[in-house]
Order: sequence, then structure tokens, then C-alpha cells
Amino acid sequence: MQIYADNAATTKMSQTAIDAMLPYMQSIYGNPSSLHSIGQEAAEALMQARETVARCLGCEAKEIYFTSGGSEADNQAIMTAAINGAKKDKKHIVSTAFEHHAVLHTLKKLEKQGYEITLLDVGEKGLVTPRQVSEAIRPDTCLVTIMYANNEIGSIQPIAEIGQVCKEKGVVFHTDAVQAVGHIKIDVKEQNIDMLSLAGHKFHGPKGVGAMYCRKGIVISNIIEGGAQERGKRGGTENIPAIMGMAAALSEACENLEANSARIAKMRDKLIAGLTKIPHSILNGDEKMRLAGNVNMCFEGIEGESLLLMLDMHGICASSGSACTSGSLDPSHVLLAIGRPHEIAHGSLRLSLSEYNTEEEVEVIIEKVSEVVEYLRNMSPVWRDLKEGRRNHVI
Amino acid sequence: MQIYADNAATTKMSQTAIDAMLPYMQSIYGNPSSLHSIGQEAAEALMQARETVARCLGCEAKEIYFTSGGSEADNQAIMTAAINGAKKDKKHIVSTAFEHHAVLHTLKKLEKQGYEITLLDVGEKGLVTPRQVSEAIRPDTCLVTIMYANNEIGSIQPIAEIGQVCKEKGVVFHTDAVQAVGHIKIDVKEQNIDMLSLAGHKFHGPKGVGAMYCRKGIVISNIIEGGAQERGKRGGTENIPAIMGMAAALSEACENLEANSARIAKMRDKLIAGLTKIPHSILNGDEKMRLAGNVNMCFEGIEGESLLLMLDMHGICASSGSACTSGSLDPSHVLLAIGRPHEIAHGSLRLSLSEYNTEEEVEVIIEKVSEVVEYLRNMSPVWRDLKEGRRNHVI
Repeated sequence: MQIYADNAATTKMSQTAIDAMLPYMQSIYGNPSSLHSIGQEAAEALMQARETVARCLGCEAKEIYFTSGGSEADNQAIMTAAINGAKKDKKHIVSTAFEHHAVLHTLKKLEKQGYEITLLDVGEKGLVTPRQVSEAIRPDTCLVTIMYANNEIGSIQPIAEIGQVCKEKGVVFHTDAVQAVGHIKIDVKEQNIDMLSLAGHKFHGPKGVGAMYCRKGIVISNIIEGGAQERGKRGGTENIPAIMGMAAALSEACENLEANSARIAKMRDKLIAGLTKIPHSILNGDEKMRLAGNVNMCFEGIEGESLLLMLDMHGICASSGSACTSGSLDPSHVLLAIGRPHEIAHGSLRLSLSEYNTEEEVEVIIEKVSEVVEYLRNMSPVWRDLKEGRRNHVI
Repeated sequence: MQIYADNAATTKMSQTAIDAMLPYMQSIYGNPSSLHSIGQEAAEALMQARETVARCLGCEAKEIYFTSGGSEADNQAIMTAAINGAKKDKKHIVSTAFEHHAVLHTLKKLEKQGYEITLLDVGEKGLVTPRQVSEAIRPDTCLVTIMYANNEIGSIQPIAEIGQVCKEKGVVFHTDAVQAVGHIKIDVKEQNIDMLSLAGHKFHGPKGVGAMYCRKGIVISNIIEGGAQERGKRGGTENIPAIMGMAAALSEACENLEANSARIAKMRDKLIAGLTKIPHSILNGDEKMRLAGNVNMCFEGIEGESLLLMLDMHGICASSGSACTSGSLDPSHVLLAIGRPHEIAHGSLRLSLSEYNTEEEVEVIIEKVSEVVEYLRNMSPVWRDLKEGRRNHVI
């Protein structure tokens, strides 16, 4: 038996999404910029997909720009706001220390170009307050970019309130909602979101496709120059099959959002209850303001990588922090941001559930994680030191 | 019956490519950055796909960077060379007037940033000589970027010779080979190509995926910042299904390249012979140095759009110039670059064939285009003026 509990890294495609893609690979394969009928059928499909995505976010179809994924959308949204800001001599950006690297590295690039970046403290629970945002905004702030829900610890920010603050102060507000879209009900207008990034493969849609919502009126800068696609804002032949798959997956996710969330959150809570029984373990992230599928734990005396590999041998696919940086030996920047000491930031376990998981799987996970943690601790010199009092417990 | 003759815009996916994608949507859907087995199976597949693409181009696997398509690869290659150039105070770039917009618009952006761009004249046949390149290179030239084969008129440049000139002068050479890869035998090492762009959907692979070949030793600048994917040079979860589909399609195209080319070129020549019998018609592009599948004609007194729409009613999918700009009312920049006057640059017809076309289809195309041209001319006031001597023929 294989249990996939790494849905924050990527998800299995839904059959609905695959079925939505295939016709555009096999028969309606035209380039939507072509005037002939095979092209125009593709163009018609593109329009419908744009409307579907817009409906799920509460915006207009013309405010949706398809991209190759969440990272591209993050890059484009941030560069757009930065370039617009520079035209008015506004080169200050507010963000947080635990954003995804698509955001943090773009901000780092801007810093080298003379922008000033304020990274808000996210506290022990991984939460930002609207007041922090309000206090950080300056007359020269051109952008606030704060992720909707954290990819590692699942904490959900008070986005509508932050949006309200930004609106009052006249600052553009972008949110990297890659982990939130399809999982949390979003209405960009009600929540005063000016720009938002999403990725298809986080809600059982295809990889290699995402979207940027950008409120009309904001002048968009290109990341990819080229043809007149996406109203001149994103060159490259539109990836129609993937766009159709993403729209179908998003529509399905939004329709079933409440029922799925409730069921997933119940599994998550069972998992947390089971795993926190392990001595010297701690849950990372907020208990309540948390993605329905996210569990992120630290176990003292455990190396994250060994834990993952042993769980994999037991058929459990999990991760240690985000997949994007899993090759790195550095401890998670997210866990450091919430104040976890280096020695335990190395030993985190993220289990991320979806509606494809079952209660039985959750029971197996609890049993196996408990066994493996005990096994690894028994072999660990660090754990022996802790047990024998030569080292102090930190959790 | 529907005849698809717009393969330069995009192609129908091969069954091989679709079959190569599906397992990575349905079962091996992991994130290749994940350490668990579903992730590592995806990582293994990614490595194999990289080797396949490298083998088809004659380079090393580590010189291949997967992108979301040809446009992104063009942007990244050009920005890379430009940024490296600026570090040595070299801000001059040599290109041609009839590049794809992914190249031309990126150059335009660089021009605004203080780079100087020399666009070489391509002559009536759409060909650049190595001598022109040699003469245009200056001590401050940081990049020569010349497309391998033109997307509208199909003319093929003397790439190896241009590569040799660039090598001798120590200038980085990039080629937008989106129309060439899978259709012309390429060996980047033998041809002295430093950087090359390709797109999966031009050789019966999937849309939304491409690659940049970049010779080792060149420091690459990111277009998309993010995680550590593609050795830190391209953020975003790898689009494994599309990458697998592209590698399979490319492998298939390269294996059958000679046989397919010969058969397609024979159909092309038959088509050209048939269409040039239409009075006051002219072939655009070189007769010999030409993509096997490309036919591009101008018919005096004909509006390109009307011709396309009527052909579509007869079941023939063709295009007028490139798909990327088909919404535009401007005449093709490519046809203007080869010296066609405005009045006929508006009336071009591109028919692009692939191995999926048949001789019978070619016969139908010749018959229908001849009929439709005659029909449209009979309704055209311009044609009446030409016939009655109130206006002079230009072709």
C-alpha cells in the first residue's frame, strides 16, 4: 500500500482534469491565435477556461492571465508592482520572512536593484497581523505581498483584513495563493486583493500551468516577451490542454470545497492528535488558522531526511518542509522564521492530505510515524544525550 | 474532410507523446524534488528526458534547461547574454529584422535599457550571410541571435557558418530554433551554437514546454526566480508530463527525420509547383534553403484574411504569416523585411505541412486555393483595377 501525503508538493491529477485535457491534445489541437476552425475552437475553449477561473476567484475573465505556474505568476505580479512603483519613486515593498522562494528570490533581485524590502515577523504561529502591515507601509511603499497560506506550516493569513489596510493606504496588495486556491473560499473583490498567483497542480490539475489575477487598471509588465497572447502580457502559444485541465480541476475543487475541507480537516485533526502523543514533538503553525490538509511537526532528536526515507519504505510519501528546496541541507527558512531552533528545524515532517486520502490511511500514518520516530531515536546519539541529561530538551 | 496545413503554428500531438505523458499524470505524479519514491521516480524520468533532448541536439544533459516553451527560452537566452555582456561593458547585439517577436520584443526591451541593437538585412530571399554577421560584430558585441529557420517563410540560415564566425570573434551565438528542432538535423557542438531555444509543440509534442540549451560555462540569469529546480536557473515545479511528452516526440522526430523530411519536401514542392501556376503569385523565401514543410505565397489583389476564411470553409486550415500576430492588422514584419510591398504583404498564405499530411491533401489544397483565389479576385475592386490597367502589377 502506498499512501500519498505530500499534496502540498503536488497532487495527483483528477480524472476530470485529465478528461478535460485530452481532446485538446488529440483533436482540437489548434493554436488559438489561428483564424481557422481548429484554432478558433481552441480560442473558444480558452475563453471559457478564463471565465471558469475568474468565477472561482470572484473577478472578471479579463483580469486572469494564464502563466506556466505559480512561480511565474509570483514573479510577474511582483515585478509589475515594482516597475509601476519605480515610476512614482516608490521602491519599498512589504512582505514576510516565510514566503515561498518564488517571492523571496524575486524580492532579493529587486533589493539588488535598489528596492528596500521589509520582511514582517510572522511570530511563533506563523501569522501576520493587519496592524503589522499597516505600521510597515510607508509613503514610498509600492507593494505588499503576503502569502495566503504557508506551504510548509499551513498557516492562513487574515487576507481580507490585510487587503483592507492596503486599500485604505492605497498600496497594491499581492498574495501568493498557490496553497490556498481550490482549498479556501476566495473572493478577490471582497477581500481587496489586487493581484493573486495560483498553480494548477496544487488542486489536482496539471503541472506547468497557473494564473495571475491582476485587477484591471494595473499596468502589467511582461516576464516573457513575445507574441500578442494574453493581451500582449505573456508571450508564448497558450497551453490550451493544461489550461482546460486546470479550469476543470479548479471548478471541481470549488464546487466541493466545503465538503472536502470538512472531511480533510477531520483527518488532519486526527493526525495531529495522534502525532502530538509522541513525546517531545511539537506542531508547527497555528492550530486554527490552518490549511485543512496541513500537518507539520518537529520531533526532537530526529533528522528529517532519515524519517522521510524510512516512512517511504513503509509506503508513506511525506516531505520535510517544501519540495522546492528539499535538495538543500539548510534548515527550513519557514521554521526558522517561526523561531524554531536550528537543531529541530532540521527535523520537521510535513504531511499534507487531500480528499483522496482516507481515515484508514491516517491511522496507518500515525502508527508508522510513531514507530519510525521511536526507532530512529533509539539509534540517535543526540537522543541518548537528551535522555541521559547531557543535553537539554528544547521541546 | 479537414486538412491541417498549419503545422508551423502548432502540431497535433503524436500518440507516442500522449502515451509518454499519461503515466506521469495518473501514477508517477510526484514532485521530482520530493525525496519519496513517487517523487524520485519522477526525478529519474526527468533525468532521462534531459538526456534524450541532449542526445537529439548533440550536447550534454546538464546543458539543457526545461522551460515553459520557446518564447521563455528565447527570453532567457537573450537576457542571459545581455546581462553577462553588461558586466564587461558590452552592450551591442546583432540580430535580424525578421526574428520571432519573442526575440524582437526582448531586444526592444533591452534597447530601452541602453543596449544597441543591429538588425541585419535579410535580403529578398530571407537569408543572412556569415559575412554580414562578421561585419556587424563590434568589440562591444555581447550576442548574435539569429533564428535557425523562419517561422513564416521557412528560410534556413547558414547556422554553422554563422556559429563559426561568432566563435572566431568570441561572441556568444544564440539561435531561436523553434521551427528547426525535430525538422533539421542539429548538432550544437559541430555548429558552434552557444544557446538554442526549442518548443515541444512544433514537432508533435505537447504545448507549454520547451527547452533552452546553454553551453556550459555561460552564467545563466533567471527569468523566473523561485526554487532550486533546473539547477537554480528556472523556478517552478517541473512539468514532468509535458517534459516526458516532448522528449518522446523529439526522439521520434529525430529518428525519422530524414525519411519524413524527404517525403514532406516532396509534398511541399508539389504544392509550390501547383500554386505558382496561379497568375501573379509569388513564393516568399528561398527555394532551396527552406524548411521541408513550408510554403508561403503572395497572391496579388487578395486579402489574406478572406483567403483563410474561405479555405477554412473548404476544410483547409492554413495561416497568413505567423499565428502569434494573426489578430493584428499590420502586414507581416517578415514579408516587409524581405522587401514585399505593403499591398501584397497583407495577402500572404502560409501552408505548413507535416508527416501527417498526404499527397492527396496537397492536391486538394492546390485545387481549392486556385479556386478561391480566382473567386476572390473576381470580387475584388483592386483586381479589376489591375486587370483594366488602372493600377500596375507588382508581381
